[in-house]
Amino acid sequence: MPLPILSDSALDQLFRHARTQNAWQDKPVGEAQLHALYDLMKWGPTSANCSPARIVFVKSDAAKRKLEPALSDGNRAKTMKAPVTAIIGTDYAFYEKLPYLFPHTDAKSWFEGNEKLIETTAFRNATLQGGYFILAARSIGLDAGPMSGFDNAMVDAAFFAGTKIRSNFIVALGYGDPDPKVLFPRSPRLAFDEACRIE
Amino acid sequence: MPLPILSDSALDQLFRHARTQNAWQDKPVGEAQLHALYDLMKWGPTSANCSPARIVFVKSDAAKRKLEPALSDGNRAKTMKAPVTAIIGTDYAFYEKLPYLFPHTDAKSWFEGNEKLIETTAFRNATLQGGYFILAARSIGLDAGPMSGFDNAMVDAAFFAGTKIRSNFIVALGYGDPDPKVLFPRSPRLAFDEACRIE
Repeated sequence: MPLPILSDSALDQLFRHARTQNAWQDKPVGEAQLHALYDLMKWGPTSANCSPARIVFVKSDAAKRKLEPALSDGNRAKTMKAPVTAIIGTDYAFYEKLPYLFPHTDAKSWFEGNEKLIETTAFRNATLQGGYFILAARSIGLDAGPMSGFDNAMVDAAFFAGTKIRSNFIVALGYGDPDPKVLFPRSPRLAFDEACRIE
Repeated sequence: MPLPILSDSALDQLFRHARTQNAWQDKPVGEAQLHALYDLMKWGPTSANCSPARIVFVKSDAAKRKLEPALSDGNRAKTMKAPVTAIIGTDYAFYEKLPYLFPHTDAKSWFEGNEKLIETTAFRNATLQGGYFILAARSIGLDAGPMSGFDNAMVDAAFFAGTKIRSNFIVALGYGDPDPKVLFPRSPRLAFDEACRIE
């Protein structure tokens, strides 16, 4: 039996009606929701199951104050009002975990000493996991606000010092302000023939 | 009203039970499905709506023969049997389309001449769109088999000559062989505390 097409309401929630939120209701996101989010997104596929994303959920006032100076001017105020902001980091030492993650062969040796392959594999796969993260958030009823407008080096110094983890992008999580005046009109997308071809 | 958590069957289909398929039923994927897939994944968020993914759906025998020599030995035979394989490309000239995609400001000027920003933005956002692509495929009942085991330069020469599009990764699409013997047991994932922390 082939799997079905998901319901229109699910497809709307995941893709068609979901928006990158810019303003947040004063409504908390609990730790159980963050665990539920991770326990979905972790199943998304990565190359050799390498799973290089590392996530810091910035939730407390102290953590928000650490993040604040790194944010671009346009992102600062709104991000401070989000109940949680996730820093999606990329672990450039991801291959150390391959004996656990990909146990049936010596995948660690594919990467050791190959800096170009490490860099490309880490960035591609942590970013893919960031995409799964955004859709997993939406799938449990959260709004997501992904952003790359911040100072990566400042975030790395504040949250990832002493590791090979580097910030990739950040995602505010919560419940978007339902007032239609706070969101831009939706921007256009490329038509199929501008972005795709079938050969 | 907050949005609901999607049904368990939807979460299973998207995340928990979905597998990277290695063998395919002899059952076609039609052009209408490829349009439906794109018309979902296109809504996923990208930085400044830059939408740099460009997709070639390899469907005909002639297109498959063009792709075949670029595939790694381990991926060749199974990929030739997939009804469709999508090449997810990254357009490093994506900023040329920003006057259309992000019309309310001159975002094109943020990128022109800034090669490092172009490169990072293009790769990050086309890869995010690749993540949306995989989950959009699953959401319409297709199985997906993402792979990065191929010769990027050969694929670029065969499919993207004369453009600034470079292959990112590929995704076989179809209906996975339901025989449980053809799939590996599922590999483990990192526990929450190994991949995440809440601050």
